[in-house]
Amino acid sequence: MKLVSFSRNGQQSYGAVTEKGVVDLGAVLGSRYTDLKALLTADALTEAAAVVAQGVAGFGLADVDLLPVIPNPGKIWCCGLNYGEHVRETNREITEQPTFFLRVADSQVGHGQAMLRPRESTQFDYEAEIAVVIGRPGRRIAEADAGRHVAGYACYNDGSVRDWQRHTQQWAPGKNFWRTGGFGPWMVTSDEIPFGSLMTLTTRLNGEELQRATTDMMIHSIARQIAYVSTIAPLEPGDVIVTGTPGGVGARRTPPVWMKAGDVVEIEVDRIGVLRNPVADDV
Amino acid sequence: MKLVSFSRNGQQSYGAVTEKGVVDLGAVLGSRYTDLKALLTADALTEAAAVVAQGVAGFGLADVDLLPVIPNPGKIWCCGLNYGEHVRETNREITEQPTFFLRVADSQVGHGQAMLRPRESTQFDYEAEIAVVIGRPGRRIAEADAGRHVAGYACYNDGSVRDWQRHTQQWAPGKNFWRTGGFGPWMVTSDEIPFGSLMTLTTRLNGEELQRATTDMMIHSIARQIAYVSTIAPLEPGDVIVTGTPGGVGARRTPPVWMKAGDVVEIEVDRIGVLRNPVADDV
Repeated sequence: MKLVSFSRNGQQSYGAVTEKGVVDLGAVLGSRYTDLKALLTADALTEAAAVVAQGVAGFGLADVDLLPVIPNPGKIWCCGLNYGEHVRETNREITEQPTFFLRVADSQVGHGQAMLRPRESTQFDYEAEIAVVIGRPGRRIAEADAGRHVAGYACYNDGSVRDWQRHTQQWAPGKNFWRTGGFGPWMVTSDEIPFGSLMTLTTRLNGEELQRATTDMMIHSIARQIAYVSTIAPLEPGDVIVTGTPGGVGARRTPPVWMKAGDVVEIEVDRIGVLRNPVADDV
Repeated sequence: MKLVSFSRNGQQSYGAVTEKGVVDLGAVLGSRYTDLKALLTADALTEAAAVVAQGVAGFGLADVDLLPVIPNPGKIWCCGLNYGEHVRETNREITEQPTFFLRVADSQVGHGQAMLRPRESTQFDYEAEIAVVIGRPGRRIAEADAGRHVAGYACYNDGSVRDWQRHTQQWAPGKNFWRTGGFGPWMVTSDEIPFGSLMTLTTRLNGEELQRATTDMMIHSIARQIAYVSTIAPLEPGDVIVTGTPGGVGARRTPPVWMKAGDVVEIEVDRIGVLRNPVADDV
């Protein structure tokens, strides 16, 4: 299934994207599971699939506003420096342990929503990534068991305000500007993408390809990332792990490439789909 | 007022600590404001004060389990390297901009709850800090207006797992182990602590004083911190800013001082009170 969170006529709901459009799961299941995170918490994907199988008509994709796949994750762990080319272009060294920082929920937007360049900076950069959405909770998850805890995968654009990221050693300020990160267009459930599948991720800015890599180029695998962050604290349904970006970010190009109002940025992951966002000024 | 979040007989509520005990505000106002964050969001402190003024009897403080003052903040911004002595003892340099990282909600415990040393580390350290709880929302708040956005102040123990904090340049892993941060005992509302008041903060471990400083020693004032983080994203009611620790942390002592099971750690802020937590192993 392709699961989404959306709003329509000011009402927030969640659903499944099918050939017939967006099936409104919230309309059927919302009294028991208020949002997609609650559906995952209840381990009710089979129930959701049964609703989809009834073949009810959906809304057109254009008739809903897609939200971040999970609008309210308990935590968003982001892995940095996880592809060799990106480590080299930033003049850093590969570390034995993975690098993790945090994003907050309101730093995100859904597919089609504008990613906002703040007025404080012109250095607004893209980062193609694969987001892992947690289904089953767990603490100190062994790498061999990591796949069982994944509900699905989405595209992620870890939009970064580079000068604020570099104000100090800690990246959180530049990684958490309001509505700078794209998360979508949907979550493809893990029954359709076997754990460990090779995926290709690309970035296109106004149609020009600027990043391309495959997941076998990750330094720290998704299994390793799940093991690491679940050692720190329990992973809960709806938690998100953003698994790192490859080389080719705008800041390291000559001359640098920055996103600006009017641009359209796309993150494509072959097994998932295309996350497309316009860029606008935060006025 | 001294406001708390608590649980009693498995029910979560919030209240005010008075000479008569803990007045259960949730029992009176809970149908409109489900938790303390909702009370702040509705700007309903006057209503809460009116309930307290009715003089209803409260529970004894010993009869409730205090929770983190705000159990569910939207974001927890933590300022690092904000007192000169602490910057010097960590062999770092003072930066023009404040250093900020993020904590997540489930890294916190309330007054009296055990701070947990994870089995992965022996390097569990204390950090005395003052937490600012946001009342009125705002974006790009001017320093001169910052005080208007503060609902109150609490003690904070920014418990840190030092080896995991230093796995890479990003501190988030060592700052987010489950139930390692103390937040309490209560929030003293800002009408009782005029903005800019001089406060003294101290740490005692098993009765021995290990940190002591006054807020005029901060490198980046609370007003400056509010201005900085509210530039990144809107501050919302219930958001927390943890304002930095002075010199004297355990990691920089000779020999180092680490917290272990059976210890009792206290953070005292003279205008607020004493946050006391036992330390236990996370088994």
